Amino acid sequence: MKKNICFGIVGATGAVGRKILNVLEERGLTFKKLRLFASERSKGLKLPFNRESIDVEFLEEADFKGLDVVFFSAGADISRKYCPEAVKAGAVVIDNSNAFRMDEGVPLIIPEVNSHALKNHKGLIANPNCSTIQMLVAIAPIHRINPIKRIVVTSYQSVSGTGLEAIAALKEQSRAMLEGKKPAPSIYPHPIGFNLFPHIEPFLESGMCREEEKMIRETHKIMESPIPVCPTTVRVPVVFCHSEVVNLELSHAIDIIQIRDLLAKSPGIIVQDDPQKNVYPMPLTCQDRDEVFVGRIRVDSSIKFGINMWVVADNLRRGAATNAVLIHQKLVQENLI
Amino acid sequence: MKKNICFGIVGATGAVGRKILNVLEERGLTFKKLRLFASERSKGLKLPFNRESIDVEFLEEADFKGLDVVFFSAGADISRKYCPEAVKAGAVVIDNSNAFRMDEGVPLIIPEVNSHALKNHKGLIANPNCSTIQMLVAIAPIHRINPIKRIVVTSYQSVSGTGLEAIAALKEQSRAMLEGKKPAPSIYPHPIGFNLFPHIEPFLESGMCREEEKMIRETHKIMESPIPVCPTTVRVPVVFCHSEVVNLELSHAIDIIQIRDLLAKSPGIIVQDDPQKNVYPMPLTCQDRDEVFVGRIRVDSSIKFGINMWVVADNLRRGAATNAVLIHQKLVQENLI
Repeated sequence: MKKNICFGIVGATGAVGRKILNVLEERGLTFKKLRLFASERSKGLKLPFNRESIDVEFLEEADFKGLDVVFFSAGADISRKYCPEAVKAGAVVIDNSNAFRMDEGVPLIIPEVNSHALKNHKGLIANPNCSTIQMLVAIAPIHRINPIKRIVVTSYQSVSGTGLEAIAALKEQSRAMLEGKKPAPSIYPHPIGFNLFPHIEPFLESGMCREEEKMIRETHKIMESPIPVCPTTVRVPVVFCHSEVVNLELSHAIDIIQIRDLLAKSPGIIVQDDPQKNVYPMPLTCQDRDEVFVGRIRVDSSIKFGINMWVVADNLRRGAATNAVLIHQKLVQENLI
Repeated sequence: MKKNICFGIVGATGAVGRKILNVLEERGLTFKKLRLFASERSKGLKLPFNRESIDVEFLEEADFKGLDVVFFSAGADISRKYCPEAVKAGAVVIDNSNAFRMDEGVPLIIPEVNSHALKNHKGLIANPNCSTIQMLVAIAPIHRINPIKRIVVTSYQSVSGTGLEAIAALKEQSRAMLEGKKPAPSIYPHPIGFNLFPHIEPFLESGMCREEEKMIRETHKIMESPIPVCPTTVRVPVVFCHSEVVNLELSHAIDIIQIRDLLAKSPGIIVQDDPQKNVYPMPLTCQDRDEVFVGRIRVDSSIKFGINMWVVADNLRRGAATNAVLIHQKLVQENLI
């Protein structure tokens, strides 16, 4: 097992890149070197890490020589261009973008769900979409004991998934609206302050937006099963955390207490389910946490074997940075690096 | 047909009461007299109507003598106490509260859906729950041509459903959070500013909250069919309008173009469905409108005969005030008053 790892983070100044730094710092991973890469805009910037200050390198002028693990989180175009270079330079790449997720030979990994798929990696590993990760962490344990026949999922997705500029836009628009003004849209095609819309990423021929298509295709790849999924993804005026209503049709009879216990014991999940006492997960309380929070676990009696749940997670951490770091930790643990 | 109607509005100073005034004004209904009632707090207040100013009477000190139609929107306790008095005094009562909705002999009416049930009214007519109204206006036309076998619905409900104080709380909390403060909860058990929670009205033994139970029971009564419904109702940081993802399992094959046309031609519905051009209903654009807006109408291929839609309406108008006034207009039109 390599202990003297050299890390790189591409997109280090973005919303997810900064969270990867936080997560590495918190987990106290031992490593030899950490290099940060970003666009020309961030050239000359320094980011704090532990008690040091690390230079941000301009990606186009840098090389990946000597790096063992490179996290990519700078969008699909950058990943398409630079991930192969990093792999060629000998690094294992953990890519947070959509660029290679569906490629054969690229494992798409949620460590708690399908870490076995890491075994034959070829240097490039994909981190799934945020809304897929939290859903699958919550439902994979159920699928193992009672196969899922259908998923209907609707999301309540925070603006941080779009990046730091979207957070600024939500705040600015909210401020303006509180003053009685009508702000123009920015980042999104419509104002998001005190508003919401069923539109995340561009719409496709199918009538779905890409976020919805991701939830279907990534679920099939990760679960290794073509479970039918009907997703509707909605942007809401919340800063951090995505929430989801997940409705499942299962294969056979359900003991809801057993399901609640199963989830509570499953890795990466915290059950918060006492609605009579106003206890259920919420964006404000799940923010900055690494787990997937599940509540309102109940029988759905509108079908024979149905259950319905409420699932919340920090999209930048659990849905991106933490999942990427967990993939790295798994690679180290399994001597795959 | 009575043309010289005397109207009363109980709860005239509340969020819905004020909207009833707006709707009556806009529709230019001819009537002889309009009396407004509220709690002691509003005693002495005057509300503008057309070019006049109308005194608000203290409910406890008032009587309903001479009134033909009284709209109630002051909560279930007030309705339980005063609706029977108003009926006894000879008025037809249109009650917006939950007090009598499930009572046998009390018609629960959405004019576009089940106005036939008004026929044998006994003086008391109930206005359904806001989230039920907009869902049923949107799906009743479909049910008539292709019976619905199951509904999975999740909501995105604005704070105005709770009343004027909740609007103030959302604004105050949002303002505080934009200044970096952590506001205490008020009105709701948790802060609603930049947050959301799957909790509308108290939780019941069943694990559902009352809003969810209403959506099931009211659907059964209005549709005169025990269609299985699985609702999850969620409060979001939006001021006006409720949004819903409505997933339907139908009885036989679906022509989605035919469904879209059918909805576009149905009374009370406006179809806004061109996602490629960023056209779909949203709270900010449906606010202050009387119709139910439907978009993202698409086949759900996760089951044999599935469709999925996005439904938005102004909860204070279409979900309350407008529906009540439409009931009144139907009563007049059918000589039932």
